[in-house]
Amino acid sequence: MGEILRVDMTTGQIKKEAVPEKYQGLGGRALTSKVLLEEVDPTCNPLGSRNKLVIAPGMLSGTKAPSSGRISVGGKSPLTGTIKEANAGGTTAQKLASLGIYAIIIEGKPADGKLSVLRISEQGAELLPGDEFKGKGTYEVSEKLRAKYGSHIGLMQIGPAGEMLLANAGVANNDPEGNSSRYAGRGGLGAVMGSKGLKAVVVDTQKALDAPVANSEAFGEAAKKFAKILLDHPVTGQGLPSFGTNVLMNIINEAGALPTKNFRKGRFDQANQISGEKLAEVAVARGGKATHACHHGCVMRCSNIYPMPNGKVCAPIEYESAWSLGAHCEIGDLDDVAMLNYICNDVGLDTIEAGGTLGILMEGGVIPWGDGKAAIKALEEVYTGSALGRIIGNGAVFAARAFGVTRVGEVKGQHMPAYDPRGAKGIGVTYATSTMGADHTAGYCITANILKVGGYVDPLKKEGQIDLARNLQIATAAIDSSGLCLFVAFAVLDNPDGLPTIVEMLNAKYGASLTIDDVLALGQQVLRNEREFNKRAGFTKEADRLPEFFLDEESDPHKTKFDVTNDELDSLYNF
Amino acid sequence: MGEILRVDMTTGQIKKEAVPEKYQGLGGRALTSKVLLEEVDPTCNPLGSRNKLVIAPGMLSGTKAPSSGRISVGGKSPLTGTIKEANAGGTTAQKLASLGIYAIIIEGKPADGKLSVLRISEQGAELLPGDEFKGKGTYEVSEKLRAKYGSHIGLMQIGPAGEMLLANAGVANNDPEGNSSRYAGRGGLGAVMGSKGLKAVVVDTQKALDAPVANSEAFGEAAKKFAKILLDHPVTGQGLPSFGTNVLMNIINEAGALPTKNFRKGRFDQANQISGEKLAEVAVARGGKATHACHHGCVMRCSNIYPMPNGKVCAPIEYESAWSLGAHCEIGDLDDVAMLNYICNDVGLDTIEAGGTLGILMEGGVIPWGDGKAAIKALEEVYTGSALGRIIGNGAVFAARAFGVTRVGEVKGQHMPAYDPRGAKGIGVTYATSTMGADHTAGYCITANILKVGGYVDPLKKEGQIDLARNLQIATAAIDSSGLCLFVAFAVLDNPDGLPTIVEMLNAKYGASLTIDDVLALGQQVLRNEREFNKRAGFTKEADRLPEFFLDEESDPHKTKFDVTNDELDSLYNF
Repeated sequence: MGEILRVDMTTGQIKKEAVPEKYQGLGGRALTSKVLLEEVDPTCNPLGSRNKLVIAPGMLSGTKAPSSGRISVGGKSPLTGTIKEANAGGTTAQKLASLGIYAIIIEGKPADGKLSVLRISEQGAELLPGDEFKGKGTYEVSEKLRAKYGSHIGLMQIGPAGEMLLANAGVANNDPEGNSSRYAGRGGLGAVMGSKGLKAVVVDTQKALDAPVANSEAFGEAAKKFAKILLDHPVTGQGLPSFGTNVLMNIINEAGALPTKNFRKGRFDQANQISGEKLAEVAVARGGKATHACHHGCVMRCSNIYPMPNGKVCAPIEYESAWSLGAHCEIGDLDDVAMLNYICNDVGLDTIEAGGTLGILMEGGVIPWGDGKAAIKALEEVYTGSALGRIIGNGAVFAARAFGVTRVGEVKGQHMPAYDPRGAKGIGVTYATSTMGADHTAGYCITANILKVGGYVDPLKKEGQIDLARNLQIATAAIDSSGLCLFVAFAVLDNPDGLPTIVEMLNAKYGASLTIDDVLALGQQVLRNEREFNKRAGFTKEADRLPEFFLDEESDPHKTKFDVTNDELDSLYNF
Repeated sequence: MGEILRVDMTTGQIKKEAVPEKYQGLGGRALTSKVLLEEVDPTCNPLGSRNKLVIAPGMLSGTKAPSSGRISVGGKSPLTGTIKEANAGGTTAQKLASLGIYAIIIEGKPADGKLSVLRISEQGAELLPGDEFKGKGTYEVSEKLRAKYGSHIGLMQIGPAGEMLLANAGVANNDPEGNSSRYAGRGGLGAVMGSKGLKAVVVDTQKALDAPVANSEAFGEAAKKFAKILLDHPVTGQGLPSFGTNVLMNIINEAGALPTKNFRKGRFDQANQISGEKLAEVAVARGGKATHACHHGCVMRCSNIYPMPNGKVCAPIEYESAWSLGAHCEIGDLDDVAMLNYICNDVGLDTIEAGGTLGILMEGGVIPWGDGKAAIKALEEVYTGSALGRIIGNGAVFAARAFGVTRVGEVKGQHMPAYDPRGAKGIGVTYATSTMGADHTAGYCITANILKVGGYVDPLKKEGQIDLARNLQIATAAIDSSGLCLFVAFAVLDNPDGLPTIVEMLNAKYGASLTIDDVLALGQQVLRNEREFNKRAGFTKEADRLPEFFLDEESDPHKTKFDVTNDELDSLYNF
């Protein structure tokens, strides 16, 4: 069932391997994490020849399961030093899975510093010279490669930031229209790809939903049932398809958990100006789209297409990006936010970390608070490789050290996303304990803390947060392995048929007889593998902590500190 | 017997405290490490209000013991994240001890960001406004403060680098002539001092050798005997007083362990041009000095005074500085090396790390190899606070990340000093296992590896290196506590009367009855305390490793790799 493509960048050799038993039945995050634990020395230099970049479609990717087109990209992170998997939509996962590619493992490091393009087609795989794309932004490279190979290609690439080995460089995946804006963004895996000299992976096939399925009739039925479950839920069936993820801007602002001016406030007085509602209105008025699917077969269609006055198009503007490039920096001009987002996508940076970094520049007095134009100018420095550009491209903790700033909302070197850990303490627990640094997607406690999905846990109290974060981290690890978009969780948490239907799809796909317990056990195993990698890399519980100012400073408006104790945090992995 | 001065920079309050029992009988490194372990949360932000800067004269400082004027400065390091003590000569230790100051503990952090000067005199201690010195180099500040308070003052200060919180900022101490060039340099303690808003400590007393001694007659005899032991040894009595530490340049070059061009070679073809012999010749011809004492009563006089053609004077040029700013960067012009050294002293940077960083800039193609003038121009950027200057001021690992360089000779974030760990494997063991990152002074195995002092252990074989490094690290921890200059070890290792005479001095000073075993036990306890701090900070044995390229790449000329195994390294702390 599929094969592994092993690419040695030191020698240029490509091998196709049968899937060894230890990797069988895995996909997505479960597979990338497992390969890293088995094959990579956790103490290695993330940008050295010993690290590996592992790319794996999810277990259901390339099938007709709705919203299952997620790709997992894994490696030891140059940003955090931990294991890292970053998960993205776009068309790559479906096309790789349709070609029967179980995983791509990129190894070694070229001695000559030259760039390559890996082309994979039904005929095989080859490494092609890539120096013609050196220093080029992702939009231009996408255009050129689509012109060369056709608009059907799946494309995974890095921007100039990844080539420069900057620790906030992400890996971009194309959407169906060719926008390189579906980022496996966090943790600097673009720099790992850059260290391998790999500028792009072209998946040159028309196929998209041709992954092998053992029992296609049962699969079709389960997939249909699952689509209905998604469509019936108010978040996945209505909220996301109307305003995308940025529907959260007004909600989180209202909840007083929208970090503003580097976590000094929990509400942004211009939140409405950068909200999903506003975005939809402007996008549609300008001929863009308020709703859009990042891959074939997604029913949630949470993406958008935002035309800017300068003629460029940003697609999409996610909530977390609008927060980091907006509220965090007190920037209330949606066009500025869109342009910052566009630059991140083109130069090859994760938006959350990039916005976090711009906030640090403001904190350090390098640019003024709220000045979108100054932020754009600063971010454009990344293209030039200037000293300032390289500082920005290396992320918030790096910029803070450069500019003498001690107030940085980060864990394990990764900047926090769009939720104040004092205003939603469950997400604070996830930030602290995630295997990959501060990350909301690792265990999205905003569900029960604020959205009242899957129950309710008072966001301002510490009680119940550990259990919530633990359960969600386990479930997320499983979902990230399945290839399903994490957003299916909204429906799955509220509908008792949700999880059983996922299990039905997995069983039909693999001809297996998994139970719900097996799937949760998979999630637990993924976390254990990742935790073990980090332990071997030298991480201890002392790294599972929030920065001091969340413990010392009361949040606004709720006047709460982060008061989950260290012992409580350390109990998260009791399972 | 003395008192502790506790300075709260948050409130501006100064308290004089009796020495609590747990700190009694300690001094120097033993005391600073103990205070940090007892009073500082090891997980704290090194530049936040929870860290403390601890300043302590050695146990024998301020007495007539020869070469005993060392001061210990301690804190959690912003460069390594470990505990850190940096040890320096100059006049501060003697004057503080003469005033009966056991230790100064600087706590908290001013909210207003203003600078202060701490003045300590026989009348007491006071915090004075220091903003007039903002951004000023150490030479100017020294001149102004000496003009204000008299040329007798002891002075400890930070340069602009420390004010900017750059992680390679050191703490400068004046020599008797007022040069601010005696650096407690390594580990970024200047940034910790900067984070406290403390620009300078003025020790305003004429006293220098007035520390209380319990039995002065016995002390005088022991001190005299110890002076003779030092004068009788070829290194401390002849080598150091003739050419200073830079007598090592030709020796280490000859041994093939002089890291050249970022550890690509073990010999530098222009080593002779930057050697101690050359330095002495040029310095004397220009009216400088080939030999000079950094504090009253030093018989080794290993320092020098080097006038430059531009009219400025660099004093001293140490071997490790001449290496980092010279051979490491392939800079063979002694005047360029001197000017780089001078800038480090003035702007407030550790020379070893700064030279290491300039080598990284060359490795990354930012400036050309061997171009002294370009290096000077780059280093001057630190004054300006430009993005490049801030990158340089944050040290080699930081600069490497900025410029996409993966070849960095460092451990725990601190650059290696002037000895290739493959060409002198004992020092490689010290680099890996020291509690403070790569540091030669932590256990100077060059003694037995190359100088054949204290026995001989083949530098190219791994056998015997662990025992050597362990014993020297223990002995060093004790000597760093005593206030004696580490260089006394050359004589002490070869003369059976050495250690007993140190014990005699300690007993006469404290009216105690210590044995040699007690002193070695003190050294062990210091290491255990530091190791415990690091453990609580989250460090594990995985941090006790050399970078990959020393394991992968054969050295030149000896064609050896660093082959001490991880298990062997992990056995160092078996005592």
